[in-house]
Amino acid sequence: MHFSGQVSIILIRPQMGENIGAAARAMANFGLKDLRIVSPRDGWPNQKAIDMASGAFEVIPEPIIFENFSDAVKDLNKLYATTARPRDMVKPVYTPDAAIEDALPLLQSDGKVGFVFGPERTGLENDDLSRCHAIINVPTNPDFSSLNLGQCVLLMAHAFSRVSIKADSKATPMGDSMPVSQDKLDEFLGRLESELEEAEFFKSDAIKPSMVKNIRNLFIRNDLSDQEVKTLHGMVTALAKKRKAS
Amino acid sequence: MHFSGQVSIILIRPQMGENIGAAARAMANFGLKDLRIVSPRDGWPNQKAIDMASGAFEVIPEPIIFENFSDAVKDLNKLYATTARPRDMVKPVYTPDAAIEDALPLLQSDGKVGFVFGPERTGLENDDLSRCHAIINVPTNPDFSSLNLGQCVLLMAHAFSRVSIKADSKATPMGDSMPVSQDKLDEFLGRLESELEEAEFFKSDAIKPSMVKNIRNLFIRNDLSDQEVKTLHGMVTALAKKRKAS
Repeated sequence: MHFSGQVSIILIRPQMGENIGAAARAMANFGLKDLRIVSPRDGWPNQKAIDMASGAFEVIPEPIIFENFSDAVKDLNKLYATTARPRDMVKPVYTPDAAIEDALPLLQSDGKVGFVFGPERTGLENDDLSRCHAIINVPTNPDFSSLNLGQCVLLMAHAFSRVSIKADSKATPMGDSMPVSQDKLDEFLGRLESELEEAEFFKSDAIKPSMVKNIRNLFIRNDLSDQEVKTLHGMVTALAKKRKAS
Repeated sequence: MHFSGQVSIILIRPQMGENIGAAARAMANFGLKDLRIVSPRDGWPNQKAIDMASGAFEVIPEPIIFENFSDAVKDLNKLYATTARPRDMVKPVYTPDAAIEDALPLLQSDGKVGFVFGPERTGLENDDLSRCHAIINVPTNPDFSSLNLGQCVLLMAHAFSRVSIKADSKATPMGDSMPVSQDKLDEFLGRLESELEEAEFFKSDAIKPSMVKNIRNLFIRNDLSDQEVKTLHGMVTALAKKRKAS
């Protein structure tokens, strides 16, 4: 993935191994690789982290453990601190998406970016925050705003993935079933119309054109496959057959 | 938050209480309220769900428990199924953001939308999928694509929050083209099936279930309006009436 080698997730004094594992899992899901941990409470390696990672540590490299914040971020060009609480600091505040957008020009120039996450209970200290260039805040329900550490990393990793992947946002996989050609669709609609005519479906000649148009709209919106048009032919045949025989 | 009363999260046969709790927590974080659960494996209430929700059940209403899929979605106008695996079904596939964008005109016209999540281990069955109008797929690292249920709900809830906050307050009214509710669609499909049965459309009992599923897929992809379903009823009546009279 673009830029994935230039983005680091930095966990500051994480307490629960489960959250480290969830962070690793979210990183692996969305193509991030570089996990740095400053003074994990329970040391490293941590079995709970490995269990919670569901194999993510086989996909991303072993995390690097640091003793302090500044060692962990030495090679990075810009740091974004995630924090739920507004602080009395004059720093730009971004949503996750806006933070990635903000980082893009730097990434495109081969710069390196770090997303910094504080300890579960207390969040980042002011000293840590003062080392970061900007703040990331996930807008949440004011009546229920707590996001856990693993969830926060997941939302950031997903934001990174969305903004950096230029995936088509919508695709309709057809599998084996090619969309029907317009002539076959027209043929079906023409046949349907005459069957309906014969069955006295159209109450009057005056409303017929608009009803025909509505029926066409209904079916054309569908991206019908060849096979589906055959099915529709079969349905019409079955529904109409005894009527014709009579 | 805008539209939060019009969006339901529907968990189909969830296995782990922890995931139900995580879903509730994510919903509370991002302003969603309506949680519906179909046949939870361990019944309801579930202490593990309540523990994992970290108080979310004090913020959102008690979830409603249903015995089957169709009861759970009766009043909803459009259903999006989340699934990691591509299936051999011709349905639009959206990212979480694109799905919310797609749902916006409907929400702005007071329509109701459901996001459907399958059981942890197996995902949604084809029969469940055939009842949904579109598919949501979260693009992940192909080498590590598994997202758990709680994470999936979190990403959807976050997408809802981001997109609905951004949404222009200017409405794009759908007028008469509000998609029909699921109970009326079910009624039509049930009637079509029995008319086809009577007309000996299904060649054998063995192939009937897959043909019924194909027919359902064909019509559900359509976002049929109330008026269109009435038109379809009229067409079936007209086609079948002389056969019946004979």
